[in-house]
Amino acid sequence: MKVILYMAMTVNGMIARENDDTPWSNVEWKNYAKKVKECGALIVGRRTYEIMKKGDDLKKIGNPFTVVVTSQKIESNKSFVFAKSPKDAFEIMKKRKFRKVLLGGGSMINASFMKAGLVDEIYLDVEPFVFGKGIKLFSDEGFEAKLKLIGTKKLSKNEIQLHYKVIRR
Amino acid sequence: MKVILYMAMTVNGMIARENDDTPWSNVEWKNYAKKVKECGALIVGRRTYEIMKKGDDLKKIGNPFTVVVTSQKIESNKSFVFAKSPKDAFEIMKKRKFRKVLLGGGSMINASFMKAGLVDEIYLDVEPFVFGKGIKLFSDEGFEAKLKLIGTKKLSKNEIQLHYKVIRR
Repeated sequence: MKVILYMAMTVNGMIARENDDTPWSNVEWKNYAKKVKECGALIVGRRTYEIMKKGDDLKKIGNPFTVVVTSQKIESNKSFVFAKSPKDAFEIMKKRKFRKVLLGGGSMINASFMKAGLVDEIYLDVEPFVFGKGIKLFSDEGFEAKLKLIGTKKLSKNEIQLHYKVIRR
Repeated sequence: MKVILYMAMTVNGMIARENDDTPWSNVEWKNYAKKVKECGALIVGRRTYEIMKKGDDLKKIGNPFTVVVTSQKIESNKSFVFAKSPKDAFEIMKKRKFRKVLLGGGSMINASFMKAGLVDEIYLDVEPFVFGKGIKLFSDEGFEAKLKLIGTKKLSKNEIQLHYKVIRR
């Protein structure tokens, strides 16, 4: 099973403003939805989950089977369950026989998946912004990874997508 | 006069490891040197200046006229002077009639130039690494900018250069 991190971010690696705002284009949302549908399964952290629920975003992206990684118990139902750790989330998805799973933020869950060596590929949609302050792609964690550039794709006039494979070490 | 920010960074916007290490390729150094020579003038912060001096890097990039922005007095000579602020550095360069000046890090000086609205273009050489912790492209400062993507260039198998214009607001 492949875990694919997919995020939109500023050129300096911020996935949102400090207040969670993401001034990305509609093109960006469509791409994200498409990628989620392609995988059929989504892993997010609690905060990202709550932001998505508020904005009715899970419906917009086709109500994928979702695992929310959190230490707090959240009511599960048919379309989402919660997991205590990246490894737990990984095992849940594996049991359900998903071939690809999309890891969709935020900062803490992205970093803990990387630290656990559970990310296979990374898609980054680079948005034409710089935020001096904001929420980073990865929260501060002691890990490092080498990447292999698989490809790049122009998404719109000012947006470019970078696609990497994570080299395990 | 144009101020051009040119930096190599990881995909998540880190310009160095926490200990200032930059495991970039030789291709990267050659590109940096080429861009500095093209401009003929360099602005850096004190820490970057000291790192460059230690590694004999200024010689490697052709001893460009250099302004070091710092609150501490550094001995000036014919090829470098010091400035107290981004604006001071800008004025010094303008008086010397440079048409293009390269802003070359680090984190604090990059952010203060952006905050002062003094950056015209940004070149980012995206290196195939992720650092969980490290030195950010911009230190935490309250600014935001919109960019226009001018172009992209493949530098090597795993390195891509992004070139942006900063939109003044």
